[in-house]
Amino acid sequence: MAISDAQRTALPTLEDVARAAGVSRATVSRVVNGAPSVSPELQRVVQDAIAAVGYVPNRAARQLITRRSGVIALVMSIAPGSAADASALDAGAPDDAVLRDPAPDGAASEDASPDASADTAVDRVFADPFFGRIVAGVLGFLRPLHLHPLLMLAEDEASRALVLDHLRQGAADGALVVSIDPADPLPGLLVQAGLPAVFFARPERPLPVRYVDLAHQDGGRLAAERLLAQGRRQVAAIAGPLSLHAGRARLDGFCDTMARHGVAYVPYTVGNFTQDSGERAMRELLEREPELDGVFAANDLMAVGALHVLRERGRRVPQDVAVIGFDDSSAAASARPRLTTVRQPVEAMAARMAQLLLERLDEPDSPPRAVLFDTELVVRASG
Amino acid sequence: MAISDAQRTALPTLEDVARAAGVSRATVSRVVNGAPSVSPELQRVVQDAIAAVGYVPNRAARQLITRRSGVIALVMSIAPGSAADASALDAGAPDDAVLRDPAPDGAASEDASPDASADTAVDRVFADPFFGRIVAGVLGFLRPLHLHPLLMLAEDEASRALVLDHLRQGAADGALVVSIDPADPLPGLLVQAGLPAVFFARPERPLPVRYVDLAHQDGGRLAAERLLAQGRRQVAAIAGPLSLHAGRARLDGFCDTMARHGVAYVPYTVGNFTQDSGERAMRELLEREPELDGVFAANDLMAVGALHVLRERGRRVPQDVAVIGFDDSSAAASARPRLTTVRQPVEAMAARMAQLLLERLDEPDSPPRAVLFDTELVVRASG
Repeated sequence: MAISDAQRTALPTLEDVARAAGVSRATVSRVVNGAPSVSPELQRVVQDAIAAVGYVPNRAARQLITRRSGVIALVMSIAPGSAADASALDAGAPDDAVLRDPAPDGAASEDASPDASADTAVDRVFADPFFGRIVAGVLGFLRPLHLHPLLMLAEDEASRALVLDHLRQGAADGALVVSIDPADPLPGLLVQAGLPAVFFARPERPLPVRYVDLAHQDGGRLAAERLLAQGRRQVAAIAGPLSLHAGRARLDGFCDTMARHGVAYVPYTVGNFTQDSGERAMRELLEREPELDGVFAANDLMAVGALHVLRERGRRVPQDVAVIGFDDSSAAASARPRLTTVRQPVEAMAARMAQLLLERLDEPDSPPRAVLFDTELVVRASG
Repeated sequence: MAISDAQRTALPTLEDVARAAGVSRATVSRVVNGAPSVSPELQRVVQDAIAAVGYVPNRAARQLITRRSGVIALVMSIAPGSAADASALDAGAPDDAVLRDPAPDGAASEDASPDASADTAVDRVFADPFFGRIVAGVLGFLRPLHLHPLLMLAEDEASRALVLDHLRQGAADGALVVSIDPADPLPGLLVQAGLPAVFFARPERPLPVRYVDLAHQDGGRLAAERLLAQGRRQVAAIAGPLSLHAGRARLDGFCDTMARHGVAYVPYTVGNFTQDSGERAMRELLEREPELDGVFAANDLMAVGALHVLRERGRRVPQDVAVIGFDDSSAAASARPRLTTVRQPVEAMAARMAQLLLERLDEPDSPPRAVLFDTELVVRASG
């Protein structure tokens, strides 16, 4: 049902308010925009007329005055050669085949996507449970303030320029940036341009910016202490990419704690935070260390891959091999056995990221600061 | 690095262009807005000045003229008593415990989220792989057009009113609505208000709107034919909520096909599209039909729950019990054995939803139409 021109112009305007209040349009405008120069009595008269007429301020017009759009850009930033771009490492499952359903006669129908197993870095970003947690946290914080996230993806020069452009033009008030790659140029570009942005995770190159991060090293420590408490000393680790601070710190925390308790040798393999890489890593570790009795995987997706391989090899979890994950994502509770894991409170971190951005917008001269979140161990059944 | 007032006002303005071109501000404005009344020579003079000065039109000002915001609302709409609100059915895992890591001395740190297993309907929406697929499809279609999705959640009267308000005010040009509940009032409200919106899935109450949907019944048929082709005749089904068209149609397609091949009796249980409901359903079905040799689960998450239970009971998949899922989400490829499933091309459907919305915006008087997508069987290892 299309809206007619008559209906479109029936929405109350500033002029309607002015008529109802018996004042000039300019006066109404000053009241609507909170100008200090209007007397309280006149303000009341105009407010009454606004309510009586049912006038709703035009958002675009207000934006010109307030210079706030009510929109916050939520930017997922992946760079070429990103850890997210794991196509070289994930060979894909050999046993997939697609049997195409012939289109029924005469149906106005569409073909399903041609390749059921096609999977780009972009798809992977949005398929990862991490993304959903970020959205839940950001939306949960912004909605009560009537602010909303505008979803953007930055993956090359043009899309990064678009992000900067949006901010410069006031299409978004600021950006929440989730950067998957240490070599991502976007943080540097935003700082150079003086545009308001807050980052999830400490940028790999030092920048004077607000960010939220996690006590990754402490998390590695918790995993080690859990395995030690269960009497496991032939432990191995599946690390995340060592080009990332999170990857290095979780592994360091784990290995340092093991060493402090007399376990000097901790074999490890490097994965890329995908389930498939966890599978490959577990196979490799079992080859090298057939007697291992405990595994720390640097995220839950890799831990799930490890669980699959251990089951395949007839190793009982946790009896034969205890497995500890990291994140406490939906994958941890969905796994069997359910994963014991180190919790990364992504929702709370994302909400705090949004709050730091508002702080930056409200007080542009306040100094940048970081908020570091604690980890905690969530004990389930795998170790 | 905060942007100084001097820097903020250094961005080129309409006045700068006017000065450079030697014309009035009003003339520059007419050229920028594409008014037909400006001579070609004057247009050229102004364009040259715009390039020389580096002027970028103010987005908010342009919006007042063009009445397009470049923003498309992507609305996840859940209603109270929604199928997504399954807290009554999901008891939560009994073996979760949280060991809190004491905050290190002097650290400026934050507590992790208090309850690691807290899980609202809102969280569930964003944790579901379905959401990520919708985003990937919508973003993939809109980005090359320099349009972006504004994420909104509608779950009660106030948040629904906010969606309508955004559209009325032009903060978004239109809405892509993903409605999880058949009783959702939002579609009706949007139609009543004459606001541009396209829906994922046919609204349960007939409305003159554009939507995309899937040949759900055909999908059920494909699953049945696959099980029959594997010689399975003692089959059961785990259905989705029968209050949803998708739930009813997938089950009907499956049962009708079975009947046509001489299998008149198909026991089924109703789940709610979550993994936990799939587990409970599988346990119930095994109780009633211990000899079953094939299962069709109406989505991949429930199929994964079924796989867990079958493994627990020592039933080999597919040798003892073949399992077919529905969706072809990331859960299908992550499962072991990998799920044979009916593909719902969510990304392509979401992209088409966005394209239909642009059609509505460009041609407001064109009649509403629906696009129905085919299903196809993706054969992996579970059946």
